Amino acid sequence: MLPDATGGTNLLKLMVLHGPNLNMLGKREPSVYGNVTLDSINENLRALAEELRVELSITQSNHEGELITLIQEAPDRGVSGVLINPAAYGHTSVALRDALLAVGLPFVEVHLSNIHSREPFRHQTYLAGIASGIVIGFGANSYLLGLRGLVEKLRSGA
Amino acid sequence: MLPDATGGTNLLKLMVLHGPNLNMLGKREPSVYGNVTLDSINENLRALAEELRVELSITQSNHEGELITLIQEAPDRGVSGVLINPAAYGHTSVALRDALLAVGLPFVEVHLSNIHSREPFRHQTYLAGIASGIVIGFGANSYLLGLRGLVEKLRSGA
Amino acid sequence: MLPDATGGTNLLKLMVLHGPNLNMLGKREPSVYGNVTLDSINENLRALAEELRVELSITQSNHEGELITLIQEAPDRGVSGVLINPAAYGHTSVALRDALLAVGLPFVEVHLSNIHSREPFRHQTYLAGIASGIVIGFGANSYLLGLRGLVEKLRSGA
Amino acid sequence: MLPDATGGTNLLKLMVLHGPNLNMLGKREPSVYGNVTLDSINENLRALAEELRVELSITQSNHEGELITLIQEAPDRGVSGVLINPAAYGHTSVALRDALLAVGLPFVEVHLSNIHSREPFRHQTYLAGIASGIVIGFGANSYLLGLRGLVEKLRSGA
Amino acid sequence: MLPDATGGTNLLKLMVLHGPNLNMLGKREPSVYGNVTLDSINENLRALAEELRVELSITQSNHEGELITLIQEAPDRGVSGVLINPAAYGHTSVALRDALLAVGLPFVEVHLSNIHSREPFRHQTYLAGIASGIVIGFGANSYLLGLRGLVEKLRSGA
Amino acid sequence: MLPDATGGTNLLKLMVLHGPNLNMLGKREPSVYGNVTLDSINENLRALAEELRVELSITQSNHEGELITLIQEAPDRGVSGVLINPAAYGHTSVALRDALLAVGLPFVEVHLSNIHSREPFRHQTYLAGIASGIVIGFGANSYLLGLRGLVEKLRSGA
Amino acid sequence: MLPDATGGTNLLKLMVLHGPNLNMLGKREPSVYGNVTLDSINENLRALAEELRVELSITQSNHEGELITLIQEAPDRGVSGVLINPAAYGHTSVALRDALLAVGLPFVEVHLSNIHSREPFRHQTYLAGIASGIVIGFGANSYLLGLRGLVEKLRSGA
Amino acid sequence: MLPDATGGTNLLKLMVLHGPNLNMLGKREPSVYGNVTLDSINENLRALAEELRVELSITQSNHEGELITLIQEAPDRGVSGVLINPAAYGHTSVALRDALLAVGLPFVEVHLSNIHSREPFRHQTYLAGIASGIVIGFGANSYLLGLRGLVEKLRSGA
Amino acid sequence: MLPDATGGTNLLKLMVLHGPNLNMLGKREPSVYGNVTLDSINENLRALAEELRVELSITQSNHEGELITLIQEAPDRGVSGVLINPAAYGHTSVALRDALLAVGLPFVEVHLSNIHSREPFRHQTYLAGIASGIVIGFGANSYLLGLRGLVEKLRSGA
Amino acid sequence: MLPDATGGTNLLKLMVLHGPNLNMLGKREPSVYGNVTLDSINENLRALAEELRVELSITQSNHEGELITLIQEAPDRGVSGVLINPAAYGHTSVALRDALLAVGLPFVEVHLSNIHSREPFRHQTYLAGIASGIVIGFGANSYLLGLRGLVEKLRSGA
Amino acid sequence: MLPDATGGTNLLKLMVLHGPNLNMLGKREPSVYGNVTLDSINENLRALAEELRVELSITQSNHEGELITLIQEAPDRGVSGVLINPAAYGHTSVALRDALLAVGLPFVEVHLSNIHSREPFRHQTYLAGIASGIVIGFGANSYLLGLRGLVEKLRSGA
Amino acid sequence: MLPDATGGTNLLKLMVLHGPNLNMLGKREPSVYGNVTLDSINENLRALAEELRVELSITQSNHEGELITLIQEAPDRGVSGVLINPAAYGHTSVALRDALLAVGLPFVEVHLSNIHSREPFRHQTYLAGIASGIVIGFGANSYLLGLRGLVEKLRSGA
Repeated sequence: MLPDATGGTNLLKLMVLHGPNLNMLGKREPSVYGNVTLDSINENLRALAEELRVELSITQSNHEGELITLIQEAPDRGVSGVLINPAAYGHTSVALRDALLAVGLPFVEVHLSNIHSREPFRHQTYLAGIASGIVIGFGANSYLLGLRGLVEKLRSGA
Repeated sequence: MLPDATGGTNLLKLMVLHGPNLNMLGKREPSVYGNVTLDSINENLRALAEELRVELSITQSNHEGELITLIQEAPDRGVSGVLINPAAYGHTSVALRDALLAVGLPFVEVHLSNIHSREPFRHQTYLAGIASGIVIGFGANSYLLGLRGLVEKLRSGA
Repeated sequence: MLPDATGGTNLLKLMVLHGPNLNMLGKREPSVYGNVTLDSINENLRALAEELRVELSITQSNHEGELITLIQEAPDRGVSGVLINPAAYGHTSVALRDALLAVGLPFVEVHLSNIHSREPFRHQTYLAGIASGIVIGFGANSYLLGLRGLVEKLRSGA
Repeated sequence: MLPDATGGTNLLKLMVLHGPNLNMLGKREPSVYGNVTLDSINENLRALAEELRVELSITQSNHEGELITLIQEAPDRGVSGVLINPAAYGHTSVALRDALLAVGLPFVEVHLSNIHSREPFRHQTYLAGIASGIVIGFGANSYLLGLRGLVEKLRSGA
Repeated sequence: MLPDATGGTNLLKLMVLHGPNLNMLGKREPSVYGNVTLDSINENLRALAEELRVELSITQSNHEGELITLIQEAPDRGVSGVLINPAAYGHTSVALRDALLAVGLPFVEVHLSNIHSREPFRHQTYLAGIASGIVIGFGANSYLLGLRGLVEKLRSGA
Repeated sequence: MLPDATGGTNLLKLMVLHGPNLNMLGKREPSVYGNVTLDSINENLRALAEELRVELSITQSNHEGELITLIQEAPDRGVSGVLINPAAYGHTSVALRDALLAVGLPFVEVHLSNIHSREPFRHQTYLAGIASGIVIGFGANSYLLGLRGLVEKLRSGA
Repeated sequence: MLPDATGGTNLLKLMVLHGPNLNMLGKREPSVYGNVTLDSINENLRALAEELRVELSITQSNHEGELITLIQEAPDRGVSGVLINPAAYGHTSVALRDALLAVGLPFVEVHLSNIHSREPFRHQTYLAGIASGIVIGFGANSYLLGLRGLVEKLRSGA
Repeated sequence: MLPDATGGTNLLKLMVLHGPNLNMLGKREPSVYGNVTLDSINENLRALAEELRVELSITQSNHEGELITLIQEAPDRGVSGVLINPAAYGHTSVALRDALLAVGLPFVEVHLSNIHSREPFRHQTYLAGIASGIVIGFGANSYLLGLRGLVEKLRSGA
Repeated sequence: MLPDATGGTNLLKLMVLHGPNLNMLGKREPSVYGNVTLDSINENLRALAEELRVELSITQSNHEGELITLIQEAPDRGVSGVLINPAAYGHTSVALRDALLAVGLPFVEVHLSNIHSREPFRHQTYLAGIASGIVIGFGANSYLLGLRGLVEKLRSGA
Repeated sequence: MLPDATGGTNLLKLMVLHGPNLNMLGKREPSVYGNVTLDSINENLRALAEELRVELSITQSNHEGELITLIQEAPDRGVSGVLINPAAYGHTSVALRDALLAVGLPFVEVHLSNIHSREPFRHQTYLAGIASGIVIGFGANSYLLGLRGLVEKLRSGA
Repeated sequence: MLPDATGGTNLLKLMVLHGPNLNMLGKREPSVYGNVTLDSINENLRALAEELRVELSITQSNHEGELITLIQEAPDRGVSGVLINPAAYGHTSVALRDALLAVGLPFVEVHLSNIHSREPFRHQTYLAGIASGIVIGFGANSYLLGLRGLVEKLRSGA
Repeated sequence: MLPDATGGTNLLKLMVLHGPNLNMLGKREPSVYGNVTLDSINENLRALAEELRVELSITQSNHEGELITLIQEAPDRGVSGVLINPAAYGHTSVALRDALLAVGLPFVEVHLSNIHSREPFRHQTYLAGIASGIVIGFGANSYLLGLRGLVEKLRSGA
């Protein structure tokens, strides 16, 4: 289950997607999301990616359609897996689910805050049922744990 | 109820809208949608349009807002009816319904797969209640039947 | 996906079933169903059947049990598919669903009016989830589109 | 609001329909329905009909389809209104509702027992929403009150 | 089941209760309730009471508490049964139900309009489940039929 | 609790009712119902009946009304109990429940397949709440176990 | 849409109704409703009324029945519109809705606090669906905005 | 937690409110509420009050508005807590809840019968969520236990 | 509570957002929204803004993502409050709610038509629970009342 | 209704059961349950028991099965009634309800905190519907009131 | 479908599990479960086991965890199938379902009383959907029929 | 957010709890849970614990009560956090939630399989709303990611 520790040839390419309003992280509403900025999350992700020897393509978008298009293009870009924090679109977007179904890539869904201790409409996401793994409530660390889990899942072939 | 077989003056202009992820048709997830591509669907639509002597303007978009704007502009472009596969937005977009209500054009809603044999959240669409007609589950042929039905509805004045 | 244009040997036999109260078409309540009679629908169906080179056996019944028995006998009569307007029984009859499941024939469900713009109890049918295709809201033309769709589905082997 | 007391020419024809299991009245389960027989109800109905100078055609059937057909034929038989105890079919038959909608005759729905003090699935009927009047819980007298109400409604032109 | 035709000694006293807003009958919103006034309904009730040899005590109130108190006092006034149109309080007042349960008098619930063809919150009443009989949708005649039914129920001892 | 082993005089008469589509058993859809035919089930039932010294009257019908009428006639035919596989009508027919309530005979409800592992609308039946016993999911053996249980219940007087 | 600025003849009479517990404003529970008293609200209303040249009749009541009666009497008092804060009765009183339906006067519903951020049973009111306008959550200013909106609606004839 | 046993100066004033129909106690429907009268309950309450050295002001009302007004006036009368049996209004009155919220006095809700073993609409009350304590099902003793609990809560300062 | 009448230094900047399809106002579907155009609404808003000495930045968009981005940028542009008609996105967009939560600006939600008298899915919005105020159903005047309410709320510091 | 004050022979034996996590009382989470320990509750219970001349057998268990077994053994131990704080098992254990049904002993259910002001899943218990009495929200005093109520109920023979 | 009548080598080992409170059978609450004791049920089971040449291991437990452990150990003990009356745990225990899923043994679920005529929370069990067969309502005989059905299912290889 | 890399004094003690049926891992039902055994999971956990310099106390139990008691004892054992796979008890045990609330320790909930792609009753857990973090669907790796997340959360003091 541990990642192989071998070679440079096996460089995984992964896509990281940040959904709507995540560009505001650390700027506003720290009581819910803490005061970590998206830039620092991305730095931490890149540092861990280097450690795990994977390549990341990171994007944030407030547009449902852009997120969909990014997912659709992932296979042609050689991406093997997706790490996605769908934010609010997780609760309302069937189209995002369809995009992930269409490309058929394994993906891990992460959430900064514990969606189960917030409003009832945040307790369900359209992505959860088809995700390879889900990490919730660890703050910025949710991304790092999710990335680790995704890489190990891809490397173990599970 | 049959279309008039007369004149060239009566050339109907119709808009065909393909919703999110339909650009992926035939590329991915063939177990659900078959392996027909969107291009071949559009070719078949154009062939039938010629046979029925109607003019088609065909667009696919992953953006809810773009689909809305396209619908809003239809009357000014002389469009008399809309053939729309809303895909996932059918289940979540009240705004799409409002756009169709706003322009007041007759429209036919089509779906490739049988939405009633998939997940429960696909059993309802916001468009169904105001559609002129609905065609579900015939694969790519849903579009052709829908086009035929829309044209006959417009020509019969019903 | 287009029907084969070849031979006389390939004569499909199809069953057309009209559910309860459809014998009243054109006689009463024209505001909902228009003023087309069942006879004229059947004439149009036969004309189209001739064009598509298929043979139709058409029956209307107000009895749930009779409709069930007709479906059960279809395979022994050499019927390859069913075109059914279940009318009210679509919303209440599990037995009709079971009959169609039992014979395993592909069938197309049609509705004259848009059931999704009527009372909530008409928004769901027990047949929809297992239908090969569904056509809703085109008035009498729903039958013609449904027949066309059924024939093409059977001929394409899809 | 009182019936006109004038002429013999104004003889109303009404249809009385007894739904499933009402032929068992007085024979079984007297704790729910009392021990009045259907025959005695019909006698009382005919006596009151004579008093009100209306003509009754009375039928009981256990078959949903037969009840539907009887309703469909009512207008051709010169029937001006229907008095119906749908019994169990009131709770499950959309087709019965459709038959009454199709003929467009005013009808009164009656129930012997108080359906609101029995199982929850008896608290709603598909007929109630389109009935001209409803009489519930007076035992056999529900029919007589319903007949009286129907006749007065028809005669008053309300 | 017919009332006894005998004596003056058997003079039943009944209470008629009109719930909130029924004092507005005939003054406003005739599209729903017709243009009969409460006074004319009461006159008709008194005429029928005389014919049936019963004595009526009639009150209208917009106050839930007053209706409750009136019901509570009924047994001490020698009242044997209640004819009540609870109007809106039927849908919201458990206290009214409790008052009727407390006195234990047989009562008939009447409604002028068909509550089942109006808003969903009007489809249920707290009184229906414990009523001796229910008459709905005959306009002002609902009261007369209800009175007749109540008297016959009391006289028959059913 | 064991049946008395005594006499020939105590010959029980029981009615076996097969609901809609059960005549198709073994002919179609073997993945759900296995490939046993209704004839072989009836043979096995008759063999067991002989062993248990009871007399069976066996009928299959696709008509709700016919099943109702058969149940209504059972007491006059000297029937002491009913073994019924209501099939689809179990989920939709209040009238069947009423027929069984009306005759007041003990009855056992059987199902071939496990209705609780199929579609949600098959998880409830209108008969279950008033059945003397229920046997589900043993395939054709459900009938034999149900017959045994019914006979023992009748003989034990429980 | 702006009020006419002309004459003294056009003096509108409006009724302001404060529902239950609003007499407690400013005395208790300031965390929810602030510390403005009902008197100061009424003063502000009268000042604005003068500015808008309308006449106000203002009443507070804890009695559902009194509020109903006040509404019923409004037309006879020459009232052209009602500004009502139904408070708790908005969530539970069908009778209040019926009173407003009966008189048919345009009315504006106001709430001091944001009912949508309080308990779920406060998210719906029986009045909302038939109101001419609704103003929520501006504290005491809700009344002033509501009055302004009502006057402009009446003067514009909309 | 025990009450202080000290002084006469510490005389608590409490309000006891009996909701609708409780004036009927012991007169009617003894199967539900027993045959204790409200007078005897009040006597027992006064006796216990003397023992606990508290002063009681006891009122019964069938009017929701009166109960509300009584609660509103309690603080000005020096009342420190309320013992209330809301009866039916507990299930339907948001206004009663609001009155108790407005005055902010601790209150104990009591019910004679076990509301959880009666009709489903009696299983919830609008008061329960904000009560200091709740006592259910001990018959007349519910009041005495509730009074004791209220006094101890007030004296303990909890 | 009245706005301060003092100085030019206190010039508030507010953002006005019009959601999807509002650019169609006055062009289509006048039966629902009247025939006022968005331009005339904006003119009226600007006139009132001048009167209230506030500065407005007005945008309409059919794109959920654009509306989100506009809200996110508001604080950096010195905006102190938002006046938003979310139109259809109010019913479906959690992301819009999150954007407003993220910036933490007070905002007022307005709707032209009475959303509570339209389809059930329009009765709730994701914004209502966190809005500073809500104005519904006054047509174009909803904007003016909402602007007034927003300005007064900001100036009063409430 | 007061307990008899007489004899030593009449010594009642009662069982007190504390459900899961109640051993943690006073150790943790004082914001919900206060800082009273279970030991001090038991001391108070024993003191009151002596005053009321009853004998208590007190047990706490975190095991559903142990609580069940204790209840089952109660009758053989001469126990006449049960005072139970089911804690979390009240909301989830049908087996506990069955144990209490099986032994048929009167029991009183108590809760320290007000379960109706906590999470929705705490608003219902499986025991409430069959309890002799319920005491909620008085903190540790709930036990004492419950014991008093139970003893009085047993002694009064109610 | 009949068991093979052959050999001693084919001795099946089956586990019989009685859930919580079944040790109380015949001791208490005979109105629901009759007065048969668990011992007599077990005797009857052993007698039938001998007749059917199977070996039984029978246990009753009030502990969910013990039942789970017993099921887990079954395969190692050579058990081929389980006959289980889960009693109350059937309605609440997902863990029991998981234990049965984990061992993958065929099992038959039995209930003494008709769970469908008791409280609504008894109408569903977590085991039903994965059971090989279900026997309900035959009292103690449910076990014997269930054992017979289980043995025949195992022997027939179905 | 990264763990401090300093000292031996800072040795965290954590409790790992495996819920019911997890002792069966790798032995049965590999299609759902894979074929990893609990022992190998524990080994991996201990290896990672050593790497992270934390001490683990690991227990599996099929008994809800045992899991509760283990959690209650954790603080006295110097445990600073809990890693728990509640398995089936997550979906049904309020008592487990209460135990975690009572001790107030941070805990991470893990699940091997994706509970959101299994039966609906597995989509919610009673623990999720109060967990510090949740990891779902990574198979055995869920534990390792959860441990890592828990340690980092404790060390970062978040």
